[in-house]
Amino acid sequence: MSAKLLEGKKGIIFGALDQNSIAWKVAEQAHDYGAQFVLTNAPVAMRMGEINKLAESTGSDIIPADATKLEDLEHLFTKAEEILGGKLDFVLHSIGMSVNVRKGKHYTDLNYDWLEKGWDVSAASFHKVMQTAWKLDSMAEWGSILALTYMAAQRTFPDYNDMADNKAYLESIARSFGYHWGVRKKVRVNTISQSPTATTAGSGVKGFDGFIKYADKMSPLGNATADDCASYVISLFSDLTRKVTMQNLYHDGGFSNMGVSDMVMEQFMK
Amino acid sequence: MSAKLLEGKKGIIFGALDQNSIAWKVAEQAHDYGAQFVLTNAPVAMRMGEINKLAESTGSDIIPADATKLEDLEHLFTKAEEILGGKLDFVLHSIGMSVNVRKGKHYTDLNYDWLEKGWDVSAASFHKVMQTAWKLDSMAEWGSILALTYMAAQRTFPDYNDMADNKAYLESIARSFGYHWGVRKKVRVNTISQSPTATTAGSGVKGFDGFIKYADKMSPLGNATADDCASYVISLFSDLTRKVTMQNLYHDGGFSNMGVSDMVMEQFMK
Amino acid sequence: MSAKLLEGKKGIIFGALDQNSIAWKVAEQAHDYGAQFVLTNAPVAMRMGEINKLAESTGSDIIPADATKLEDLEHLFTKAEEILGGKLDFVLHSIGMSVNVRKGKHYTDLNYDWLEKGWDVSAASFHKVMQTAWKLDSMAEWGSILALTYMAAQRTFPDYNDMADNKAYLESIARSFGYHWGVRKKVRVNTISQSPTATTAGSGVKGFDGFIKYADKMSPLGNATADDCASYVISLFSDLTRKVTMQNLYHDGGFSNMGVSDMVMEQFMK
Amino acid sequence: MSAKLLEGKKGIIFGALDQNSIAWKVAEQAHDYGAQFVLTNAPVAMRMGEINKLAESTGSDIIPADATKLEDLEHLFTKAEEILGGKLDFVLHSIGMSVNVRKGKHYTDLNYDWLEKGWDVSAASFHKVMQTAWKLDSMAEWGSILALTYMAAQRTFPDYNDMADNKAYLESIARSFGYHWGVRKKVRVNTISQSPTATTAGSGVKGFDGFIKYADKMSPLGNATADDCASYVISLFSDLTRKVTMQNLYHDGGFSNMGVSDMVMEQFMK
Repeated sequence: MSAKLLEGKKGIIFGALDQNSIAWKVAEQAHDYGAQFVLTNAPVAMRMGEINKLAESTGSDIIPADATKLEDLEHLFTKAEEILGGKLDFVLHSIGMSVNVRKGKHYTDLNYDWLEKGWDVSAASFHKVMQTAWKLDSMAEWGSILALTYMAAQRTFPDYNDMADNKAYLESIARSFGYHWGVRKKVRVNTISQSPTATTAGSGVKGFDGFIKYADKMSPLGNATADDCASYVISLFSDLTRKVTMQNLYHDGGFSNMGVSDMVMEQFMK
Repeated sequence: MSAKLLEGKKGIIFGALDQNSIAWKVAEQAHDYGAQFVLTNAPVAMRMGEINKLAESTGSDIIPADATKLEDLEHLFTKAEEILGGKLDFVLHSIGMSVNVRKGKHYTDLNYDWLEKGWDVSAASFHKVMQTAWKLDSMAEWGSILALTYMAAQRTFPDYNDMADNKAYLESIARSFGYHWGVRKKVRVNTISQSPTATTAGSGVKGFDGFIKYADKMSPLGNATADDCASYVISLFSDLTRKVTMQNLYHDGGFSNMGVSDMVMEQFMK
Repeated sequence: MSAKLLEGKKGIIFGALDQNSIAWKVAEQAHDYGAQFVLTNAPVAMRMGEINKLAESTGSDIIPADATKLEDLEHLFTKAEEILGGKLDFVLHSIGMSVNVRKGKHYTDLNYDWLEKGWDVSAASFHKVMQTAWKLDSMAEWGSILALTYMAAQRTFPDYNDMADNKAYLESIARSFGYHWGVRKKVRVNTISQSPTATTAGSGVKGFDGFIKYADKMSPLGNATADDCASYVISLFSDLTRKVTMQNLYHDGGFSNMGVSDMVMEQFMK
Repeated sequence: MSAKLLEGKKGIIFGALDQNSIAWKVAEQAHDYGAQFVLTNAPVAMRMGEINKLAESTGSDIIPADATKLEDLEHLFTKAEEILGGKLDFVLHSIGMSVNVRKGKHYTDLNYDWLEKGWDVSAASFHKVMQTAWKLDSMAEWGSILALTYMAAQRTFPDYNDMADNKAYLESIARSFGYHWGVRKKVRVNTISQSPTATTAGSGVKGFDGFIKYADKMSPLGNATADDCASYVISLFSDLTRKVTMQNLYHDGGFSNMGVSDMVMEQFMK
């Protein structure tokens, strides 16, 4: 019981952009816990990031892939199995982007081409990732597939815009595909619904700083950080959680089950 | 309190295909309860249906519209306000279609063009409908917008395929847009999660008869019929429910909150 | 379709204390919609209220009953059927009280005798009411049983104290007993999760005014009032909702599905 | 990162009856992962069990305590801190009993003294445990408190009887008290909603074998065993999950998010 928790486990980590990324922290901790993995990101995103440093510090390879393109994903999974020398024990999907959010379009004035683009990148990509792994039979038995999501899928945060609907779709994919993975390969599929996190991606959302403060004061344990999230991911990649599947797991310091906290009411009543 | 419940109310009803359609039953009951409305459907779907009979029996006009096309929707809302002589009190969205289901593609082998098509028709169309009404300011205060959905958005029914994910997205739109409608115009937006119903559309799903029987034996009150659903819709269009919004409302004879019924266990243990 | 919505329906209404009570408003509206009913309340509560006025204005009888005492409940149901001339179509349970709240005990310093008392009055009483009706076979087919609850059953509002746990238990009884009622008699059982409401009972909760304001600014439609709630109850007693059962129905202007509203964020950021 | 996951952690484990108990498995695994703990059970239950063997194999002390009695709990927590030499990092509440279930009373024919007894043992005891720890300030910062529950709290399984309502109350306590623990001491409180498990306690429920088979065929990963559950508990006691609080966590092979599986439908259609 004193071996490293992820000793011998192999996987793919999507979405490490820079050191603020949750995926970046996951890579660092997964390495510390003994895992081997391949890093991947969209070619366009990778030019912006510093992923090479991460690859070096964790001894991992980088395989660029646009997660909306099947040929990229096929190459990624084929290559990853080759590099890692076997089937995969874990996959982390940490990808999301809304053109409507970036361009400042209001939810009542959406551009529908951008809506489709955001849906494809943020949500449908998760299906494409899993369908590719399914067809190539890339997952090992009792493997763990995870995607990151946000509570806007259940409750409305106006500034989160069409990402809310994308996250609802993403979480539904986790359940729908999770059934088939479970029956066929004992693989589990879950989503983590994380506190608002000051990543480079997250900071594109309007009024984000105020909202982070609000969430922090609402949550009895305060907001979960990117590092906290990475730790939680480790537990979900480990064999301690093999029978957890098709779940959306709140990792948010308690926010999701708060009506209102004393700290928020105090601030509100000022 | 003895006036007809929907007296003086005006609206648009999407999706009456034939007399098995829930939207058809809604039109009939809404007419009986004193409402006036416009019927609409996709031009292609209308050729298959018998919507003219319904228009006659309910004294309503038909305005064809493809709910994925903004110009069609603009024409529809403009024309409907003109015909009905004022802003709208209710809208029913009863639209759904998956090419992958129709073509028998398994959830682990989806065609992504078809995925996008089904998402657009079944889910994004609901946003387009509301955004059009929003921009034209077509809704009256305290109006009611409803869409029909199915519990596959929360729990996995393998044969429901990618429609599960579409319904999850649809329900999220109801919450996201419901916020803005509430604040701006006191309009409420909800979805009804209906028992499996033997409509012409529903019967395209594989193994549907067996599933209807299963749902019926699981539900303490039995499955809700299309007629039952129409009655529930009437209550949600009426002024009795003005403060219900952003909800997904199960109308299913109790199925959604069953673990297992005695009747299903008996059958299972045979 | 122009008959009064509750014409011919008979029932029992628990918990009309004074004109601020939701049950009081339900009685008034049910009367307007054509229903006949018996009013009941605990003998001790009735001395405080003005229930005689309500009985007069609605042409109803009063039968005192402590809802924790089986002999009182048996007398009530037997007598009600006698007075109303037949089985019951609806029952409203609007009863709740926590001694710990009244005495200002903190949730981390509860008195356990008081905990048990509050659980009995607020939650177990709902089972006793239904078990009595069950044994006496007092309900008509397709009848409707309702209890009022609050979202503290799902999410934490610190000042709501042990009433949160009582409401969770109450809602569970609705599901558990709803199954049996459905199978045996086609009777439905639901709970309404109502906005915080300035009733005489509600106002015992610490910091209630501030909280009402907070809820109002969070809810896109504003808080639902006691009158709004009564209207919703009418819809759930009517035949329009016969296949809705075992549900907890949020009637709260959208509060339950809000993450945070713009109005609350503005106030918070001041 | 290769130290044992619970190295240095101290706690109390309630409810190890015999080797079929989940609490028994938790004790064994917690020991393997480096934790130290005290075992406790009701004096009456302990005579039936074989807890001495467990104490021996895990090097732990046994302190009998009736979890409904405050003086027993005070003695337990005081003594445990003394024996373990410091504040507690974890507590497992694995206690439940319904007299109505044991005596075969139907849910529509409950004995209310037994109802109160079952509520006290199965649900209120969790509050008593936490209130005692609170008053004695027994928990270390970032500690983890867990209780075991079952999905009957959300969905109806007729044979589960009044235990369903007890579990709903228990889960509510976790949220209510979880708020205060979080704010004061950074302690998290969660419940695990476990697959039906063939423990000595569980097997008292009528028709349990058939139900276990049904759940197994419904769950994509099959039922979670007591050993699986213990592993999950380890992850929730560890520092990997410090920001998860006030949650009800399904550990059930996917059952909770299934509508119906192919395997159940096949059996059903025979």
